[in-house]
Amino acid sequence: MFICAQYSSVYPSWVPPAEVLGVLSDEALYIGELRLRVTPLRDTVLPPVSSKLVKSLLLASPVPGWMRELVEARRGYKPLFVSMLYRGRRALYSATTQAGRPLVARAGQPLEARVAFVAHDASAAWELAAVLGGRRETPYGPVETVVEEARIQTPEQLRLPSPADGPTGVLRVEARTPVVLTSKVLVATEPPPGARIPRLHRLLPSPGLVAAYAFRLWNRALGPRYAVYWRDAWNHDAAMVARAAEVYMAEIDYQLHPETVVIGRGASGRLRLARGWRGWITYRVAGPRLARLLDRLLALTNTLGLGRSRGIGLGDTHAQWIQPKNNKTKPNQ
Amino acid sequence: MFICAQYSSVYPSWVPPAEVLGVLSDEALYIGELRLRVTPLRDTVLPPVSSKLVKSLLLASPVPGWMRELVEARRGYKPLFVSMLYRGRRALYSATTQAGRPLVARAGQPLEARVAFVAHDASAAWELAAVLGGRRETPYGPVETVVEEARIQTPEQLRLPSPADGPTGVLRVEARTPVVLTSKVLVATEPPPGARIPRLHRLLPSPGLVAAYAFRLWNRALGPRYAVYWRDAWNHDAAMVARAAEVYMAEIDYQLHPETVVIGRGASGRLRLARGWRGWITYRVAGPRLARLLDRLLALTNTLGLGRSRGIGLGDTHAQWIQPKNNKTKPNQ
Repeated sequence: MFICAQYSSVYPSWVPPAEVLGVLSDEALYIGELRLRVTPLRDTVLPPVSSKLVKSLLLASPVPGWMRELVEARRGYKPLFVSMLYRGRRALYSATTQAGRPLVARAGQPLEARVAFVAHDASAAWELAAVLGGRRETPYGPVETVVEEARIQTPEQLRLPSPADGPTGVLRVEARTPVVLTSKVLVATEPPPGARIPRLHRLLPSPGLVAAYAFRLWNRALGPRYAVYWRDAWNHDAAMVARAAEVYMAEIDYQLHPETVVIGRGASGRLRLARGWRGWITYRVAGPRLARLLDRLLALTNTLGLGRSRGIGLGDTHAQWIQPKNNKTKPNQ
Repeated sequence: MFICAQYSSVYPSWVPPAEVLGVLSDEALYIGELRLRVTPLRDTVLPPVSSKLVKSLLLASPVPGWMRELVEARRGYKPLFVSMLYRGRRALYSATTQAGRPLVARAGQPLEARVAFVAHDASAAWELAAVLGGRRETPYGPVETVVEEARIQTPEQLRLPSPADGPTGVLRVEARTPVVLTSKVLVATEPPPGARIPRLHRLLPSPGLVAAYAFRLWNRALGPRYAVYWRDAWNHDAAMVARAAEVYMAEIDYQLHPETVVIGRGASGRLRLARGWRGWITYRVAGPRLARLLDRLLALTNTLGLGRSRGIGLGDTHAQWIQPKNNKTKPNQ
């Protein structure tokens, strides 16, 4: 790339600081994922973001200390995803357009949920699976949980689903809950002193935003041992990846809408809202190198989610390579 | 800004080369705009892009040489916009989703059109208005034209419509015909030798693309006398503006869809298509300096259009400042 982030040249050899990563050594890591069937035992009014029930389920179970810590941690890029409750393909949460209508789950009607995390231990998923099942009391009423599937992967294994052997050049991303991306992710890690960067919610999945967030999440959640680089190590910066993606990737088709979710209530009683995009989009990825990078980065977002508030089920996305349409009359894409 | 386009430092003091501008001196320029009422004199099957009828109307009239040249010129950023024919608010063109259904105009049913241009003469609009009216033969049949409005502005006068005195911080852009933006506009003017930049059609109006195109159009269509700069003259580059817009601007709401238009047929008989976005979008513009810049740049795109193929009516956009909603519970935008 012939574009650079000027101030990042202050890092002659970039190593992510440990406190940024939340990972203190370069030990091996594992990505675990559990699929749960959660059945309310009586008619239940769900919270506006139903993932809170899943969270309290985790905290009501004798889960290991590291998981409890992860659930309660409040920091960006944390290696945990707790999904909304799903009824079939529908994620249960209140968009502001549906405000007032409470979310209700019927007694005996099973719902689905997913928990994904990064762990230091290959057996973490089984330990968690062993303690999560059974009947639990939650602030929303008693529920019965069955762990339907548990899976562990190493970061090296992560690849996107594809109809071919690897990237096809056409990427499809579907968001089942709103994805909240902010413009901060496009800014060099160390802006010059005095620069005031607003935190704006971006509501379109432009290639740069998606790639930059996925790049940061990978490096922050997986730490130095698995760090990925773009071009030179001296400029290990998501802003670089964003610029490459803006030039070598383009939208092919989409169906998108912005959506605001009530994620809680502040101390003053004011509603806390998050606004993001939902729907699906397909991209042409014209750079093979970029395609290979996204093949790994987005495989992580498929489990850990994309964007802010992944810990309460926002950014539940599914990315995959799809077969390019062999359309002779399509415009120059 | 703390981001830079590395290779543009080869321009120690940037002056746009004359051949790039198509404007050979720094003389005064005027932006002219005509609104036409075009009435077919018999039932007419319109071409898939109805602007071609308006173009042949221009060529069938005794227009001055400079206008004839502009209409026939084939180059990017040309200072001419020829709109589609409109029936009320509906632009008449064939999207591929409507392929097969021919566009028909009824005898006696008036249609609207708009022609905008940059001229070297303050009286250019009146000269043009004087020769355009009346009955003309076109390849699509005879039409009767009435010039309903002619207007001339200097580049200094150009400002966006606003409910307040100047930028409000909330920008609305509506596209009545598809806007075709390519990723090339994000790349430094002089990429390093050997860099292969694909020409990809971008289908989302991300702030960077819109701002970068408007910036280039302004500087290329209006030339050195009216050139606008972003930060330092040493880096007079649309890529810089794009990056600023990506950080200091964010979408608030939108209703968008991609659309493909049949713009003609190639030599081999293959359909020539253009794909772009349509609909409307609102942005928050958080940087006052960026807002003042866009206030001028987008006022030019309001007359000359936004993106490729403005000469055949694509990119017919209307940008304006709107009143920010005073919504206490809105998310941090």
